[in-house]
Amino acid sequence: MNRRDFLKTGAVVGGSIAVAGVLGGCNDCEKDVNINRGKKLKLKLATSWPDKFPIMGTGVDRFAERVKTISGGSIEIKVYPKNRLVPALAVFDTASTGQIDIFHSGPYYWKGKNSAFSIFGGVPFGMTPEESIGWFRNGDGLELWRELYAKQNLYPLLGGNTGPQMGGWFRKEIKSSADLNGLKMRIPGLGGELFSRLGVNSVLLPAGEIYTALDRGTLDAVEWVGPALDKTMGFHKVAKHYYSGWNEPGSILELTFNKNSWEKLSDEQKQIIEVASNELHSEMSQNFHYENSKALRELKSDSSISIGQFPDEVTKTAKKEFEKLIDQLSSENSDFKKVWDSYSAYNLTVKEWTAISTTSYLNGR
Amino acid sequence: MNRRDFLKTGAVVGGSIAVAGVLGGCNDCEKDVNINRGKKLKLKLATSWPDKFPIMGTGVDRFAERVKTISGGSIEIKVYPKNRLVPALAVFDTASTGQIDIFHSGPYYWKGKNSAFSIFGGVPFGMTPEESIGWFRNGDGLELWRELYAKQNLYPLLGGNTGPQMGGWFRKEIKSSADLNGLKMRIPGLGGELFSRLGVNSVLLPAGEIYTALDRGTLDAVEWVGPALDKTMGFHKVAKHYYSGWNEPGSILELTFNKNSWEKLSDEQKQIIEVASNELHSEMSQNFHYENSKALRELKSDSSISIGQFPDEVTKTAKKEFEKLIDQLSSENSDFKKVWDSYSAYNLTVKEWTAISTTSYLNGR
Repeated sequence: MNRRDFLKTGAVVGGSIAVAGVLGGCNDCEKDVNINRGKKLKLKLATSWPDKFPIMGTGVDRFAERVKTISGGSIEIKVYPKNRLVPALAVFDTASTGQIDIFHSGPYYWKGKNSAFSIFGGVPFGMTPEESIGWFRNGDGLELWRELYAKQNLYPLLGGNTGPQMGGWFRKEIKSSADLNGLKMRIPGLGGELFSRLGVNSVLLPAGEIYTALDRGTLDAVEWVGPALDKTMGFHKVAKHYYSGWNEPGSILELTFNKNSWEKLSDEQKQIIEVASNELHSEMSQNFHYENSKALRELKSDSSISIGQFPDEVTKTAKKEFEKLIDQLSSENSDFKKVWDSYSAYNLTVKEWTAISTTSYLNGR
Repeated sequence: MNRRDFLKTGAVVGGSIAVAGVLGGCNDCEKDVNINRGKKLKLKLATSWPDKFPIMGTGVDRFAERVKTISGGSIEIKVYPKNRLVPALAVFDTASTGQIDIFHSGPYYWKGKNSAFSIFGGVPFGMTPEESIGWFRNGDGLELWRELYAKQNLYPLLGGNTGPQMGGWFRKEIKSSADLNGLKMRIPGLGGELFSRLGVNSVLLPAGEIYTALDRGTLDAVEWVGPALDKTMGFHKVAKHYYSGWNEPGSILELTFNKNSWEKLSDEQKQIIEVASNELHSEMSQNFHYENSKALRELKSDSSISIGQFPDEVTKTAKKEFEKLIDQLSSENSDFKKVWDSYSAYNLTVKEWTAISTTSYLNGR
């Protein structure tokens, strides 16, 4: 019930003076107080994650709970895990057509729709979470993202960051880039395209089939997320070489609205969603860091697992191939070029500060 | 006005049926909607920063604005810059006695009250912003902080992070730890105690007097914050050696309530403040990163300024002295020991993940 309804109701029951007294007359109350909370807004949110999926799924559940509380119960977001209402990778189209109001997923899944979208999800050798959040907010990342998603009838908000992801689990040690040649590896997104250029046969498999394929050797390697989520998949039991990576230095997740659903909201409702999504974003990064830290220690205590970095030669070769990939995608798609130019200009501005502050500190402490 | 008052008012004016109809009868409304927004809550917040102080002061102003909007105008936080209502460093005591409701400052200012408080502000050679936020939330940092502040009748929330700070501006090049001996340097907090152990004569000066003292040579060095805020002070014009640091790898700012003011809030009001303070915290880190990046580039374009790291020998000597300082503070104060044990245990858990993910990525990209 908004204030106008309230006053009207007061008039109907003949109590306008008493009602006005309550609203305007007491010491603690002021006439500009907005009590537009009586009308409940219900929104449907579908995710690409299983029910109670650690960190990502549970983060979205907490977001919905937070929105409900801080809106005085007036905004209720019903969260549907993958396949409950919408298949995991149908959330984009379903929100685009307005069958659901919101989805939570990762922009790297939609590069088939527009290769530029993958940049919003983060890129190999790209910005860290700390740097990229600045591109979205202080640079023009968010503006470009919204401009491109508007054509899909969508309105994106930041919905989390996985932090740096690992390079993957390999059945055999990688001593040089030649060892990658011909490997069958589960790796999606721009990282997958990059590994393909290094000779990897990049494949996509349903999550439930990866472990068995890796165990049987029909798959040689798998890139998933990081220690916390990888450990629950059990990859360490069947592939003993775990490499840190440069393929996903900080993958961004999205909380994306159907554009009409977003535009119908009042400024107050929009800000409630925004502030809660900003919390979701930072809380998810923090939870990934903590859960990955704990899982890494457990993995390190297993002496059968070797954890380390790819040899320098592999990293250098990958970096060169990545530059070629960027050139190719930029020449194929003007959207990609436009977003990449903005992304790399911002990166250039901030990476010197990262080097002199964070990198030199971490190396020296 | 909460729902009970509303119903009571309805009864007074004889309109209970019509009123109940509005609350419970329409399609969009539900009976559990909380419209406890009519009563305006006014809170006084004093900061330790000048009016419109970049990043920190302006961040607090945005926080107050956000709270107002997402509470439907029902929570109004009036922000008083330093000396407007309370002197900069009197905010702690003034909130403790309840003369103001909230203050925004840094826990490192209160080590004279309890040396343990300085740990909540961040410590030399300690955790990065990414790591320390986890200690507060996933570890028991926030719980310990609240336990100790409760004795001061205070209730702290996280209120920002400056990101890694610089080691300071020096009039002369530092080639070894011997060069620090006898220098007069403006540096506060645990960093100041550490530099004192390296032979520095650490002094505190009002902000307005530092530049002149540095120019005249009555001060040999100054540690302030980082490129963005340092540049506005003009230190680069009179001291040409700028070193990155390990004295403040990520200083935490606080948004601290008078405990009674906090406890009087409803759960909904508490959550509105919490979600907005979480946004304040992450947004401030992000803004520091961006503003420092821009300012660093400008400083680097001035060839008269030398920007680099302290020699390894200085860092190693400082690290050894810091361990002794921790031993001393732990033996002097059981609160310090308790908080330090928690802090260092958490640090141990997470630093391996930081090394394998962030550090190796930053070195290799």
